This record gives sequence, structure tokens and C-alpha cells, in this order.
Amino acid sequence: MEYRLAIIGFGNVGQGFAEILRDHGHRLLEQFGVRFRIVGVTDPLKGSIHDPAGFDPDDLLDAVRLAGNLGGIDAADRGWDGTEMARLSSADVVVELSYTDLETGEPATGHIRAALEAGKHVVTTNKGPVALHYAELSEMARERGLEIGVEGTVMSGTPTVLNGMNLLRAAGIKRVQGILNGTCNYILTRMEEGSTYDDALQEAQDNGYAEADPTGDVEGFDAAGKVVILANLLMSVPIGMDDVDRTGISGLTPADISAAQGAGERWKLIGTLEPADDGVVASVRPERVPLSHPLASVGGATNAVTYSTELLGDVTLIGPGAGRLETGYSVLVDLLEIHRTSV
Amino acid sequence: MEYRLAIIGFGNVGQGFAEILRDHGHRLLEQFGVRFRIVGVTDPLKGSIHDPAGFDPDDLLDAVRLAGNLGGIDAADRGWDGTEMARLSSADVVVELSYTDLETGEPATGHIRAALEAGKHVVTTNKGPVALHYAELSEMARERGLEIGVEGTVMSGTPTVLNGMNLLRAAGIKRVQGILNGTCNYILTRMEEGSTYDDALQEAQDNGYAEADPTGDVEGFDAAGKVVILANLLMSVPIGMDDVDRTGISGLTPADISAAQGAGERWKLIGTLEPADDGVVASVRPERVPLSHPLASVGGATNAVTYSTELLGDVTLIGPGAGRLETGYSVLVDLLEIHRTSV
Repeated sequence: MEYRLAIIGFGNVGQGFAEILRDHGHRLLEQFGVRFRIVGVTDPLKGSIHDPAGFDPDDLLDAVRLAGNLGGIDAADRGWDGTEMARLSSADVVVELSYTDLETGEPATGHIRAALEAGKHVVTTNKGPVALHYAELSEMARERGLEIGVEGTVMSGTPTVLNGMNLLRAAGIKRVQGILNGTCNYILTRMEEGSTYDDALQEAQDNGYAEADPTGDVEGFDAAGKVVILANLLMSVPIGMDDVDRTGISGLTPADISAAQGAGERWKLIGTLEPADDGVVASVRPERVPLSHPLASVGGATNAVTYSTELLGDVTLIGPGAGRLETGYSVLVDLLEIHRTSV
Repeated sequence: MEYRLAIIGFGNVGQGFAEILRDHGHRLLEQFGVRFRIVGVTDPLKGSIHDPAGFDPDDLLDAVRLAGNLGGIDAADRGWDGTEMARLSSADVVVELSYTDLETGEPATGHIRAALEAGKHVVTTNKGPVALHYAELSEMARERGLEIGVEGTVMSGTPTVLNGMNLLRAAGIKRVQGILNGTCNYILTRMEEGSTYDDALQEAQDNGYAEADPTGDVEGFDAAGKVVILANLLMSVPIGMDDVDRTGISGLTPADISAAQGAGERWKLIGTLEPADDGVVASVRPERVPLSHPLASVGGATNAVTYSTELLGDVTLIGPGAGRLETGYSVLVDLLEIHRTSV
């Protein structure tokens, strides 16, 4: 079975996904009997191409590496923006990978609406539409018999979302607790090893974990966005960013770190979600966890989530929270889920 | 949507599953739009009943609790053995929960063949058929467009199998390492806390974790069976029990435990599976793991598995490895997967 894909946004994640198709396409055909053909790519900086005959992923990656854009690739159609690509392309699935805006959810939400209206499945790693408009978008998809895959919005390709929605929700989720931001976890781990907050942040920036303006990470906004997404996906009551009681890690001192260590504990930036009578209670804050806690041993840029359930007790998933191939993989796993539930 | 179930084997797991349907049936209908009706139960000790109208799970549980058997329940048909139930019942899905025999795989394998020949999906928690005959049974199912759910054969309802097969296999599995036997892990944890091996084993028996003859657990046979199952499910080359290089924990001394602790390490009984040029390399043996290893913090009767993958790196899943409701839940999660991929 073949799926035709249109990719909106060809940055790190899109290129990581194209690398996976280039390097693992044969194996995927053999293991799952499925082939993915990229028929369109649009990116505000790299250009826009579409061709029903499809493109070789290697040609796309070469063009971006050598020329910085897709101008040299032969194509039937050119110049479509994201909405046009979603509407007009010959794809079965629109892969929405444009930049995240947690305030408006645009332009991604518009692309997803256009794709669903045109009868196409959607896979996205974009937190904006899922944090802000999931109820509307999933209802649109359901009415049309289409799927929206959002695995990459939390913990990259570590299958956090699919575990929660398909494998653990039936056990009755009583609480979700997670280390959902790799930058903060890296900084806290380095502080335990003796760094100051400023030095650890600088290292995180040097290693590419933290951006030049680290506010989104260290003040807990990124983790709060993921808490909102998990609430929207797993609990019946949607919440917004303002509903998350949020504290970052920038106020933690070496003395705080030592005090925890002396007590056999460890600071972690923990996102928490609990059902309540009138909805859900959601927070992101630094917490001291005992070393015996499954989240305590999660160090460096690794992420983790513990689902506490009525029937199974605690189930913890630990894995990467970011990365080019790791997030590219989330697109693949969502596509394979569409395949599994469609055939 | 309604699914009609015939249950073969009504011991702890079958009763745990019936409790889940009794206590959570309304929620499952609301969350997933699905209803499960038990139309048949057969058990060599408790009797055999079948009725297309279905049974109330509470009546079944009451009968077993009060009378020890199903003789007092009104039913259209009586006296069918497992094979007859698989063949003749009005079920859509046969839930095979009879006792495990890792040498012959019977009688469970015969029940599963009969169910598939009669056009019924199968869900089983029975390690025998999956360790010994998975290739044949899954091929039979595929030819007929049927599903076999086997989540409960490894780590009870912790979704180890579904993660491996559906969510992580595409990432290219390079190694699987797991703490797959809760009894051994409990004994090792207690020895770290100062118990001798004999005292820790006695405690495990008193707590119901270990059987009167603990050989299957402490000599690694149970873990080896799970390694074989994971090999058969995840790797293309099937293996047998004899292909697992197996050492148990009964030879570990307090001095071994202290030596590991002194080196910042911890003994764990680790099952390992690695693809090799000529198949797979499989082992179960006590290993010293550094405290920073994700499996090191898994204490007591808890189980865990780390999938090392090419595209995602390491992904670890930690959760319960046994229990009446926990294993009953594995039946539910398999049924919901059949529902998701069928509608």
C-alpha cells in the first residue's frame, strides 16, 4: 500500500523524516508492506514544489544541503503556500511541520483545517493547533472519517501520546506526571553535578538544547504547552495555557540542589495533570522527588512520563524528548497508525 | 459496537477481566463506544456455560465466589470443553486464558487453532502458544483476516508487546533488555536491603509472588519464555527455549550484592535479545547495571523493558508484571486494539 504525502515546513523535522524515508524505506516496505511517496513540499524559505509523480527524498535533501532551497528540483507545480498545498496537492496525508505558535496556533491550524476539508489525513508535530484547537480539529476529522496523528507534539517520537490515548486510557488515568522539557532536565542534572544555573544554561545553549532566549524552556512554558496537549488528548475537558499553574527552574539555587541531595531527593521540573470534579488540575513546577521515584533516574535531556491508572497502577515511559530523527520518527509512527487503522 | 466473547479458563485472570467489565463497562462504552458481552465460559473445574443472550459478569463472579462453580447459572448450552467453545460458541472473539504449558503449548494452542478456523479473533495471555507456535498461528490469522492479541504474555497489562510491535519496531530494534520476572526482582531488591537469598525467597512466597516450587522463576525459565515470545513477535527469526542462554539468581550471595553496591551498581536478572547475522542472540542472566541505567531503579515486583532502537535511541517502559486486574487489563487492551483496527 502506498501513501502520498505533502509536507508543510521543511526544517529539521521534515528533513529528518525525509532521511528516514531515504534510509529505511526498503525496510518499512518489507516489515509493514507500506510505501510513502513525498508528492509535495512547501516551506516559506526553501520554496514549494508539487508533483504527482513524487520526489526522491535524497534529491530533496541534497537540494537543501547544496543550494539551501528546492528551486533546482523538477516539479509539475510551484509556489503553493501551505494552505494551497493542503488543499490542492495529490496527497493522501498532509504532514504539518511548520513553526509552533502557542498563542494563535497559526498558520498550522489553517493548514490542518484545509487538509481535512480536502479529505486528507493529517500528521503534525506542531504543538500550537493541538494545544489550542484539538477539540475542533478532531471533531472535523471524525466527521470525515479521517485521522489526525499528533505523536510528535510530546516527547518527540517516544510514543507518549499513542500510549496514553490507545493503550492506557482504558485503564482509567488518575494522574499524569512528566519530565517534559529536556533543556530544564539537562540544567538540573548539571547543577547536581556542581554547575551553577548560569553555567548549566550556557552549556545547554552551547549543546543546542536551549535557544538564545531560553525563557520558553526554563520558565516552563514549553512543558505547560505539553501538559495542555495531554489534557486535551486524554481528559474530556479541554484546558488552555492559562489553566496551568506554572513555575520555572530559574529560581533554583545550588543550596536548593544540595538540600534535596542531602535528603535523598532530586529536583525535577514536573508537569502534572489530574482529573478533578470540575475539570482538571494542571501544573508545571520544580518538585523534589525521592530517588526511588521512576522519574528520579531520568537524567540529562531525556524525557519521561508516568501514567497513574486505576487498573494498572503506574506505567512509566522514558525516552528522547527532542531531536531531528527522533521527531521525524514521530511522523512515521503516526503514518503507520493511519495505515493500521485504515486497512 | 458490541463484541461477543467466549472465555476459556476462568481463573484469576478471567475473573479479573470479568471484574473490569462489571466495574468499568459503562465507562468503556462512553469512552470508546464499545461493549463486550460474555456469551460463553468454560473451565475444567468450574464448568462450562454458553448462551447467545450473554451473561452478567457479576452473576459469573458471584457463582464462582459462592458456589465455586458456574452450575447455578441459566444457560442455553452446557458441558462444552475449550475446543468446542472455540468452535461452536456465538462469540466474535475467543479469550484463551487456560493454564500455561511451555513444553507443549497445549491445550491452549488447540483452542486457538479451533477459534481461528471458526473465523473468530483470539486474545490470549497464555505464554505457551506464543512461545512455541506464534509463526503458525499468526499466519493462520492473517490468511483469514483475523487478529491475535497477546499483550498479556509479557509484563501483564503493561503494553510491552503493543509498544514493541506497533510503535517501536519501525524505529529499528537493535536490542531488547528487560526485567521480566517480578519474583526475582523482588528477591534481589530485598537482598540489597540486607536479606539473605533464602529469607527473601520465603518472603516472596509469603507475599504470593513466588510459588511453592520457585524453580520456574528463580532459575530464569519464566523470563526466558518471555524473551522467546519477544523474539517471535519482534524479530523475523523464531527461536525456542533452548536457544536462550539462561542463568538464574539462586547462586547470588550477599557478598555479590555488596560488591555491586560498593561499585555503584545493582544486580538485576536481565533478559536480552539482539539481532545477529544468523538470527538472534538471547540470554537471561544476573547482570550488574550502573545506577544510572534506566533498569537500575526498577525495584520490587515491578517489571521493565528497554527497547534500543536505531532512530529513537533507548525507550524504556516500566510497569506491573503480574496481578489479577493487571493481567485482566491486557485482555481489554487487546480487545480495544481489535476494535480500533476493525472499524
